[in-house]
Amino acid sequence: MKAIGYVSILLLLSCVLKVCAQTAGPGMQPATRHHLMPVPASVRFNPGRLAVTKSFSVAARGHVDERLRAGVERAVRRLEGRTVLEFPQGLAGDANGAALVVECKGPGQTVPSVEEDESYSLDVSDKQAVLRAATVVGALRGLETFLQLLEGDRDGYFIPAVQIQDVPRFRWRGLLIDVGRHYEPLAVLKRNLDAMAAVKLNVFHWHLSEDQGFRIESKKFPKLTGLGSDGLFYTQDEARAIIAYASERGIRVVPEFDIPGHSTSWLVGYPELGSAPGPYKIERGAGIFEPALDPTNEEVYKFLDAFLGEMAALFPDAYLHIGGDENEGKQWDRNPKIQAFMREHAVKDNRALQTYFNQRLLKILNRHGKRMMGWDEIFQPDLPKDVVIQSWRGPSSLAEAAKRGYDGVLSAGYYIDLIYPASQHYLADPLPEGSTLTPAEAAHVLGGEATMWGEWVSPETIDSRIWPRTAAIAERLWSPRTVNDVDDMYRRLAVVSVQLEELGLTHEKNQAVMLRRLAGGEDNGALRTLASVVEPVKEYRRYEVRPQTMLSPLTGLVDAARPDSDAARRFAGEVDGLLSDAPRFETYSRDIQDTLTGWRDAGPQLEALIDRSPGLAEARPLAGDLSRIGTIGLEALSYLTKGVAPGNEWRDARLAALEEVAKPKAALEFPVIPSLRELVVAAYELPQLKTTTPADWRKRVKQLAAPAKK
Amino acid sequence: MKAIGYVSILLLLSCVLKVCAQTAGPGMQPATRHHLMPVPASVRFNPGRLAVTKSFSVAARGHVDERLRAGVERAVRRLEGRTVLEFPQGLAGDANGAALVVECKGPGQTVPSVEEDESYSLDVSDKQAVLRAATVVGALRGLETFLQLLEGDRDGYFIPAVQIQDVPRFRWRGLLIDVGRHYEPLAVLKRNLDAMAAVKLNVFHWHLSEDQGFRIESKKFPKLTGLGSDGLFYTQDEARAIIAYASERGIRVVPEFDIPGHSTSWLVGYPELGSAPGPYKIERGAGIFEPALDPTNEEVYKFLDAFLGEMAALFPDAYLHIGGDENEGKQWDRNPKIQAFMREHAVKDNRALQTYFNQRLLKILNRHGKRMMGWDEIFQPDLPKDVVIQSWRGPSSLAEAAKRGYDGVLSAGYYIDLIYPASQHYLADPLPEGSTLTPAEAAHVLGGEATMWGEWVSPETIDSRIWPRTAAIAERLWSPRTVNDVDDMYRRLAVVSVQLEELGLTHEKNQAVMLRRLAGGEDNGALRTLASVVEPVKEYRRYEVRPQTMLSPLTGLVDAARPDSDAARRFAGEVDGLLSDAPRFETYSRDIQDTLTGWRDAGPQLEALIDRSPGLAEARPLAGDLSRIGTIGLEALSYLTKGVAPGNEWRDARLAALEEVAKPKAALEFPVIPSLRELVVAAYELPQLKTTTPADWRKRVKQLAAPAKK
Repeated sequence: MKAIGYVSILLLLSCVLKVCAQTAGPGMQPATRHHLMPVPASVRFNPGRLAVTKSFSVAARGHVDERLRAGVERAVRRLEGRTVLEFPQGLAGDANGAALVVECKGPGQTVPSVEEDESYSLDVSDKQAVLRAATVVGALRGLETFLQLLEGDRDGYFIPAVQIQDVPRFRWRGLLIDVGRHYEPLAVLKRNLDAMAAVKLNVFHWHLSEDQGFRIESKKFPKLTGLGSDGLFYTQDEARAIIAYASERGIRVVPEFDIPGHSTSWLVGYPELGSAPGPYKIERGAGIFEPALDPTNEEVYKFLDAFLGEMAALFPDAYLHIGGDENEGKQWDRNPKIQAFMREHAVKDNRALQTYFNQRLLKILNRHGKRMMGWDEIFQPDLPKDVVIQSWRGPSSLAEAAKRGYDGVLSAGYYIDLIYPASQHYLADPLPEGSTLTPAEAAHVLGGEATMWGEWVSPETIDSRIWPRTAAIAERLWSPRTVNDVDDMYRRLAVVSVQLEELGLTHEKNQAVMLRRLAGGEDNGALRTLASVVEPVKEYRRYEVRPQTMLSPLTGLVDAARPDSDAARRFAGEVDGLLSDAPRFETYSRDIQDTLTGWRDAGPQLEALIDRSPGLAEARPLAGDLSRIGTIGLEALSYLTKGVAPGNEWRDARLAALEEVAKPKAALEFPVIPSLRELVVAAYELPQLKTTTPADWRKRVKQLAAPAKK
Repeated sequence: MKAIGYVSILLLLSCVLKVCAQTAGPGMQPATRHHLMPVPASVRFNPGRLAVTKSFSVAARGHVDERLRAGVERAVRRLEGRTVLEFPQGLAGDANGAALVVECKGPGQTVPSVEEDESYSLDVSDKQAVLRAATVVGALRGLETFLQLLEGDRDGYFIPAVQIQDVPRFRWRGLLIDVGRHYEPLAVLKRNLDAMAAVKLNVFHWHLSEDQGFRIESKKFPKLTGLGSDGLFYTQDEARAIIAYASERGIRVVPEFDIPGHSTSWLVGYPELGSAPGPYKIERGAGIFEPALDPTNEEVYKFLDAFLGEMAALFPDAYLHIGGDENEGKQWDRNPKIQAFMREHAVKDNRALQTYFNQRLLKILNRHGKRMMGWDEIFQPDLPKDVVIQSWRGPSSLAEAAKRGYDGVLSAGYYIDLIYPASQHYLADPLPEGSTLTPAEAAHVLGGEATMWGEWVSPETIDSRIWPRTAAIAERLWSPRTVNDVDDMYRRLAVVSVQLEELGLTHEKNQAVMLRRLAGGEDNGALRTLASVVEPVKEYRRYEVRPQTMLSPLTGLVDAARPDSDAARRFAGEVDGLLSDAPRFETYSRDIQDTLTGWRDAGPQLEALIDRSPGLAEARPLAGDLSRIGTIGLEALSYLTKGVAPGNEWRDARLAALEEVAKPKAALEFPVIPSLRELVVAAYELPQLKTTTPADWRKRVKQLAAPAKK
């Protein structure tokens, strides 16, 4: 076991994947339904348990430094908080008597890097737990696993006996937070770094500039924040504090300065860098905007050399992200000087002009000792091979780059701002099954990053857009590909989500706060019911159906609503259980009836509340919709349980009504509509049960209820 | 109206009290049930309303400075958050078109002081609201009132037309936070300063040193925090940030350094100042401890001169609090050198020795330009008259001091750490009705302070110990004495409590977090039911029944439970309604039955949950108790509604059972027991209804159900 820390990651990975074939994946744990997330590369539960009592202590063997000591301290405090037990202070002197021994070989990288060895092993017997790692970061990862193993029963808290060997599948596992569109205070970043560490993410991608705000102090160019930030920015001291905080947790900080587009906020203070004369104002809208740096202006490169040099010194990571996305070049098209430059230098189009810009940028970055990273758009065949591509286009674009020898990081599929359910992100894979890459090519696929774009998040809501879904992405990037059981993921996600709260995360608790506020402090049970079964509209529809600016309050019902409704998922499961129980229709029938009755009755109460709460006025149609789907569901349920089928007029009218309910209102939608369609169709299809098997009938209902493809 | 800002506070106070006699007090608002807290000195609602729409803007007339501008900005952001409307940015240029005009005469005190004029007037018509104040602080107070006036209906948000003239009854309205026993991060202090400002408190009493921790950086004596703080302290820069944050909100910061007792943490680094040789360790227990500075050692005064000089320069307030409480002098008794000094100087006892110490201290403080403040114990007839007494003993001790010409601040009655209900604090008055003080003497009663002693609070729980109860104390200290309707206070408190959440306060939301954690993320409805009807034990019983140290996790059920259970108060009201409806017993009968059934059924679910959650093991007896009181209540209710009386055996057995339930378990108790006793007694007393009036019967039940005085 001990050797695991020393072999190279690649070797380990292939060996581990073999082990997984035997023990990992769905159903891999023989002894217990654990709550590990991400699932380790190899887990083998044994009989026995290590009691966690008030004499719980940790000893360290081998390398010990301040980072390890602080990490152990934090873990112990969390264990105390969960168990309500007070443990002895400090590291135990005697390793033999300690409940947990941390055995670390060395400090690992001084500055966290993509080469860091994060592997560890954890052996828990009924006597002791031993955590072994080659580096402190490996030990930190193992401590998180240890905390997730905690269980309890009538005899107290314990860690089940287990043998774990763990190593990440990908070495780049990131979370991008866009602080350009909405500034996020340091406390928000810190608690999210804690949460990242809890699920073993290792890259904080700090998207620091946008059309809507420039967020990092430059001592050389003070007008960047002076005029481009509304006063909302990070000082260099604060940035150093964040970098140190991340590093303490084995997390790299990759800064992004998005150019040449997305740069309005730069130009407010320095209009001379733009491709149109200006003046410029901080952008308040959402979307793609025209302002772009002028790639034909030598002053731009002088500026970038000085600015990026300053940032290269501030941010120790080997990579610096220059964005490069979504520049449509409209300012370039209209600028005669730029057009003349292009003719003169035979630059055939805007894309080529941006490549020229990137080439210049690359030299600057290399001079300052940084590797360049950028979005898909920067990928041009003549780029040097040490540039890293971040793909919002998808795994195939990533594979193409890998085949040509470029490192890449996948973000397509991990756009958490699009409000898709965790299941969808969970199944997006940087190296999907059936990938035709050779192992050497595959090694260029470094991993992935969840992207928290900041148009519609405030400090109050941002956690609920990141968590818990990002934990599912973290598992995708750490665990073997074969770990992909969605139901099991959701089961564990619910537990991890609550554990994240101990780090101060607000994703669970702030919805109640926002609903109380919207209800003016009144009793709001009906509002909670509504909020539990709606989700914000997906993709970029929110801005279409409910336009706002970056200065608008993010305190509406759409902001309180969360992605990936638990209630909707539970209801779908119950409806499936009911319909699979044909022709009895008893399974979950009582639960479904209670739920539907709750929806039906909440409607009128909601309308009364809305009468006194104008902030909810936009939700008025949803109150009627909620009652409506409750009633439709109850009708269908009654047909089913009585075994009496309705006519096609009933079915058509109800499906049409559901169609109306399905239209977004207040930028919200009901994810339970498909389940209700199934109930309606099932009621109508009752007679078919006489001529077919229940299983075939169930399939038929599912097919008929599926909405027609548009 | 405009003149109100210019007359002196004393004149205003007497004038206002006359106005109040006409319009304030319970039932004073003719047009609406407002949510103002504290209730202004004079409020007169008029017909009409000022609509709050997305064109809402604020203009300023007269004095404008950065503090006012920032205060308006914060208020406008909160109004946007509540209304989900985006308003125009910045101050409006045209006062005529603005919805709110702020008319401020001048900046007021540069350093907030006890002399600050906080009065304001607010006139709202259907055209415009005009807020007038002599100082910026007065304007800030008025802005909070304006925010509390917001209402909504089908036509949208609005401010009702109203004329308000307001001035505080007392000029010292404080909140003490003890950061010595448990350190509280800056974010905790800041959000509590925001909450203080929201309810017009104006003194943050920062209790900075205790046996258990020394929390402020001294550059002259670095070992104070170096050895006495576990690394948990405020740097001087951080202290300045807090002072500035408070000053921005019109709040003074009074630092306290508690000496000569309560000083263990000083002596860890500087044992030579102590009255016993040491060595000393940071105290981890709760209680009164022996370590005390040596008042006979000249080095102590040199140290204090240097240290207090440093602190006097750091804290701009005119007052500096030297504690002085609970020094029992045991170390003095045992120190031969001190005993010799006392004989030599004819110091007759320890109290006299402490007076000697205080006299020396006073000279030091005066030399550094500070007025001395201390707890009751420092009050000695030979103290100079500019010393301020803070009384934990009560209004009569305060009155005695006032008669002798000493300023005083009441804290007796406002010890929020004792977990009493808001109603109790609300009725404690620094100048109670029937006070025999002359007006000149009464003017020495400066006000009061709520005290958040820190034995059992963490950053996660402290807000729930302070809020919302402290808002009721804030009202006592600001509003006319005649504003004292407890039911109406609770009605308004519920609204204010939710409004405080918009400032980031966690008093409402963290209970759910802690219960989820205790339940390991499992469904925990039964646990929520239990938590809603228990309260932590009162006074200092917690430590007796459930001893912990300052290093123990504060994550148990007692920490999740909140003072002043809403559910218990509601239940008491319903039971009163039911019993006052004799002999029908219909009023609230259904609600009470639902509640009792919920309690009865929660018990077994709780036991199952506890089986899997050892952190809740201590709560196991409470699960049985909860079922028991549910069952007892249901039995009583059944007798009452059927009109059939039980025998005395039933009554005695049920009262005995309730006696057992009333005993604290896990440091928790059921505040609903008195209501259940009433139900049991009422059932037994049913036959008496034939021979007496329902009203007399109700009284009789109340008397018989009251527990015997011990």
